[in-house]
Amino acid sequence: MFKETLASIVNGAEGGIAGLLMDFEGIPVDSYAKPDSGFDVEVVGAEVSVLVKSIQRATEMLEAGSTREVAFHSEKLLTLVRVVNENYFVALTMLPDGNFGKARFLLRTAAPKLLEELV
Amino acid sequence: MFKETLASIVNGAEGGIAGLLMDFEGIPVDSYAKPDSGFDVEVVGAEVSVLVKSIQRATEMLEAGSTREVAFHSEKLLTLVRVVNENYFVALTMLPDGNFGKARFLLRTAAPKLLEELV
Repeated sequence: MFKETLASIVNGAEGGIAGLLMDFEGIPVDSYAKPDSGFDVEVVGAEVSVLVKSIQRATEMLEAGSTREVAFHSEKLLTLVRVVNENYFVALTMLPDGNFGKARFLLRTAAPKLLEELV
Repeated sequence: MFKETLASIVNGAEGGIAGLLMDFEGIPVDSYAKPDSGFDVEVVGAEVSVLVKSIQRATEMLEAGSTREVAFHSEKLLTLVRVVNENYFVALTMLPDGNFGKARFLLRTAAPKLLEELV
């Protein structure tokens, strides 16, 4: 069920490459990568979980409330992270010229569905 | 000169609160905060520098090229980071309902100006 939701995000976002549902300990719940993407989505995810955790600490320090979303753009990839709840996040990696706005929308609407299945 | 550029970013972005130019060791070059923002921009910046550094390591691991931009959204703040070169970054903190697209544009166009003055 998770994989279907992840696949619909990856395939729905123009330029989508891979999607991942993971807990903040870095343990993947499920993942989906487009065939032949050559992309090790779980290695990426473990790294992302560390980042999101430190970003959460930073936002707490700032008294800025909880982190909801993190995006990082590099030359070849754009990674978008949506916090599902205090234990899980969902991440989407896409091409930098993909449709960023649509990807954000897809993650935002998928998060409550994923949460329903997680609890 | 740096402060003027930072002020023009903060005041040009709808919802802008504070701007910061900092090196990756966490040492601020200059900063600008809107009066009465109650915002300790240098404390924030030191935390952000650690984050951006780990994100750069992650993108290297992914062979995704250099990190160019990082954004993190929380309940009360949106922080947008633009990497200026291998040593410096510029960050803008704004209200989450501010104009994200305009803020990205302002940071992207300010980065080369800041770089000219840095070298």
